[in-house]
Amino acid sequence: MAEHLSQSELDYPFKLLEYFNGFRVSKMIFSACELGVFDLLLKSQDALSAQHVAQELGTSMDGMERLLDALVGIEILEVETAQGTALYSSTDVANLYLAKGSAKSLHDMIIYRSQTVYPLWNNLVDAIRSGRNQYEKTFGLPSGHFFQAIYRSEEEMLKFMGIMSCHWVLDGHDVVTAFDLSRFQKVVDLGGCTGALANEMARAYPASSVTVFDLPQVVEAAQKHFKQEDSGVTFQSGDFFSDEIPGADLYVLARVIHDWPEEKCLALLKKIYETCKPDRSIFNTAAHVWVTMLPI
Amino acid sequence: MAEHLSQSELDYPFKLLEYFNGFRVSKMIFSACELGVFDLLLKSQDALSAQHVAQELGTSMDGMERLLDALVGIEILEVETAQGTALYSSTDVANLYLAKGSAKSLHDMIIYRSQTVYPLWNNLVDAIRSGRNQYEKTFGLPSGHFFQAIYRSEEEMLKFMGIMSCHWVLDGHDVVTAFDLSRFQKVVDLGGCTGALANEMARAYPASSVTVFDLPQVVEAAQKHFKQEDSGVTFQSGDFFSDEIPGADLYVLARVIHDWPEEKCLALLKKIYETCKPDRSIFNTAAHVWVTMLPI
Repeated sequence: MAEHLSQSELDYPFKLLEYFNGFRVSKMIFSACELGVFDLLLKSQDALSAQHVAQELGTSMDGMERLLDALVGIEILEVETAQGTALYSSTDVANLYLAKGSAKSLHDMIIYRSQTVYPLWNNLVDAIRSGRNQYEKTFGLPSGHFFQAIYRSEEEMLKFMGIMSCHWVLDGHDVVTAFDLSRFQKVVDLGGCTGALANEMARAYPASSVTVFDLPQVVEAAQKHFKQEDSGVTFQSGDFFSDEIPGADLYVLARVIHDWPEEKCLALLKKIYETCKPDRSIFNTAAHVWVTMLPI
Repeated sequence: MAEHLSQSELDYPFKLLEYFNGFRVSKMIFSACELGVFDLLLKSQDALSAQHVAQELGTSMDGMERLLDALVGIEILEVETAQGTALYSSTDVANLYLAKGSAKSLHDMIIYRSQTVYPLWNNLVDAIRSGRNQYEKTFGLPSGHFFQAIYRSEEEMLKFMGIMSCHWVLDGHDVVTAFDLSRFQKVVDLGGCTGALANEMARAYPASSVTVFDLPQVVEAAQKHFKQEDSGVTFQSGDFFSDEIPGADLYVLARVIHDWPEEKCLALLKKIYETCKPDRSIFNTAAHVWVTMLPI
């Protein structure tokens, strides 16, 4: 930490106090999404009063007014006053990322964080004590690896796949073009889920063949419920721990390694190393196994 | 919102994504407090390994290591590597504000936010829909005004009084000296709780008499459980809605108005206006009723 930052924080802990309020900022935005505030403001031609928004969305006037004012405070909404009435309108950022139907909507990610991740994190102390996920304490689900909880029903699995897809709407193109990967003819995205990243890859490198390798139920749902663009991406079913993985010049492990304990990761990386083509004496595995450790 | 800020956020929503992770940042710090991480690091002469911290505090190694690394990421802790082992130490900011026994410890505030406010905010959507607090849905407590929940037992009341006191450790002196209030001879702090702000006031203006007016059980607990410095502050019991309030030149309403609906606030402000001395034709009530609207 820079000395001057540390010193000003010692005098008055502005940053700490912001951190203490972080959960409120998250929940304000999440709740406005869940209530449909951003969709209503996007649809409306005019700025709307708190009373109008409350009536349309079936909420209390007091609660809605406080929420709208709080969202103005963090610059997610804008307010103007006309004849003594505060009128709220959306910002371009909210229209693009927070409204439901927009091209870059993060709506699915937000709902998942609000309804699943936020309550799980209420039990973070227990998670750290035990070293185990908190699906049981939080939602009464059987304990085990968290993928058992995430994939407990098709509905839950689709929610999770939705947020995985969401991430690549933001980062996908930038990530696949950060390095020139055109020399890799066969690319396999291990745990590639909906194929959102694989599609970005196929678009950026049309001469490469790109395969998504994931569990059978994931592959089935990806093809049934998620729009597969005509990018030539193929899907292959299997378990990357217990099944043979397809040969490739480049393996993609994106948002995968952080899900597993050390020994599972080592087993997977060893398997990839041994399967790696064309000649592992020429390419270092580090160039083949592309591990992203972005936060989910 | 400034145009350039809006534009860069449109290209990539850095700020929005930080807001989405706000709850994680809060809970990381809260959980480290609850587990005693900052107390252990303050007590220790040396930087400690994750394994050492996990053993001392009885947690999993994996969970503790992730927590410590995350706290380094937000500059609350520092790390150095010795012979291949990461060794963690505290920052001055963490020692001053996050450790339990320090002069400016915010420990009580943190525990309250983590165990009471964070879970309440999980039901923010319902709060906005209904316009009611969520003590019933969150903790199974009878619905009613939230002070019924907060004051449901002496233990809970003391927790709440602790955090109220905490706030004035940070802001009290600055707030009472932001304006020269020395011309007010008699000051009454309505809902003054532990007397933390009143004590700051009495210290800054030794010629003024300062009285805390609060509910009987609060006054009793304040005198019994909170250190009352020899600052000459007196306590008086009563309900500022139903009882007569003591006469004064200056009324303090600090972190009070935001607790109540509009009509209650108006009734209280009207009562103060009518009681105001020495002569309300000379001083505007706005100068007498000092309302702070700081976030709790």
